[in-house]
Amino acid sequence: MVLLLPEDLISSDRARLTGRRLRHVREVHRAVVGEDVAVGLLGGRMGRGRVLRLDDEVLELALDLDRDPPPKLPLTLVIAVPRPKVLNRVVAAAASLGAARLVLLNAWKVEKAYWGSPRMDPEHLRAQLLLGLEQARDTVLPELRLARLFRPFVEDELPELLGGGTGLLAHPGTGQSAPSPLVAPVTLAIGPEGGWIEAEVQSLLRAGLRPLDLGPRILRTETALAVLVGKLF
Amino acid sequence: MVLLLPEDLISSDRARLTGRRLRHVREVHRAVVGEDVAVGLLGGRMGRGRVLRLDDEVLELALDLDRDPPPKLPLTLVIAVPRPKVLNRVVAAAASLGAARLVLLNAWKVEKAYWGSPRMDPEHLRAQLLLGLEQARDTVLPELRLARLFRPFVEDELPELLGGGTGLLAHPGTGQSAPSPLVAPVTLAIGPEGGWIEAEVQSLLRAGLRPLDLGPRILRTETALAVLVGKLF
Repeated sequence: MVLLLPEDLISSDRARLTGRRLRHVREVHRAVVGEDVAVGLLGGRMGRGRVLRLDDEVLELALDLDRDPPPKLPLTLVIAVPRPKVLNRVVAAAASLGAARLVLLNAWKVEKAYWGSPRMDPEHLRAQLLLGLEQARDTVLPELRLARLFRPFVEDELPELLGGGTGLLAHPGTGQSAPSPLVAPVTLAIGPEGGWIEAEVQSLLRAGLRPLDLGPRILRTETALAVLVGKLF
Repeated sequence: MVLLLPEDLISSDRARLTGRRLRHVREVHRAVVGEDVAVGLLGGRMGRGRVLRLDDEVLELALDLDRDPPPKLPLTLVIAVPRPKVLNRVVAAAASLGAARLVLLNAWKVEKAYWGSPRMDPEHLRAQLLLGLEQARDTVLPELRLARLFRPFVEDELPELLGGGTGLLAHPGTGQSAPSPLVAPVTLAIGPEGGWIEAEVQSLLRAGLRPLDLGPRILRTETALAVLVGKLF
């Protein structure tokens, strides 16, 4: 799906694109004038765009936006900042899976340099979220929050975010399975590569999360995330 | 976990490593002489290795292998060959999730060039499976099968692979959810980026699979795979 931004609209039913999305439609969709491509308007409806013009400079589409995007999952993901190399995939996966909110949280085993990576730049993170939405055929950005201080976030904000729903802390070795049925909204915390340290686990439990054991296999963040979404929803 | 190959053993309880795994233990584990690292013997037991020597040339470990690897899932994955760029991740994810068998299958929308990629070389694929096992802390390789001809595989081999268990075909738009409870073994087929064509869907259904709809979101292969494992097991 091609995700249209408000600034792409030249009228209520006409869009003009350049750059990455123009190239994508030419080279991957291989669309030609007169054909339809799947489109969605960021934050709005989805449908088809008929190609009116497509050349080196511009793609012009006549829009027919006839349906709503898929509903979001009532899910807040709280993820310890992963290595820059995997950050893009984790962020795009969170968006494509339909999480309503993504919190990138500091933790003891998150290297300080990760926060300084250009990939943590909000504009860069937003671009990954948009890629995840395009992949999944959704138009609604998850809310993104960067929580650089563990304790203030977990002690002061997390209890309120839980909103009376189910809070879960992915943590190996506890033998706990997911409660059933879940009470929405669901908040799910996933630790860094080396795991949460004990003091963090205790803080997260005090904030209202309960432990959830995924079994003996240690999975990469983006794999664990998808397994948990499959298990919980 | 450091995965030891049979040829690394210099006696029944002593191993000597060089190359990638030596560098990994030095640079990522940052182990020193006298410390323990988690180890597993390919196809065998897991436990600890005490570092006896660690320098530019060699890592020598005294082994204490005291437990069995985690059980495999009774799961055969039949995956249409993905783009070379994502193949590594899909193969490693299949191993880390614990699938017992992985079949890489041709499909109409699999580009012919994918089969010619150096990443489809069996030795390269095996290396990705080993990385997935190390990540998950497992020692048992899934069985890997390359099925370059769709029809002979689906018509002649797939019905037998199903083994009286549950066969599922991930296919959007059918509205079908997973049967519950599942009958093991489970066989799960996941299509290429553009989806299965109708003739392929019909062949797979005739072979005994039933459709399974993951909902309106179109997920990347490795994400869909993990969601399904979470949902089914």
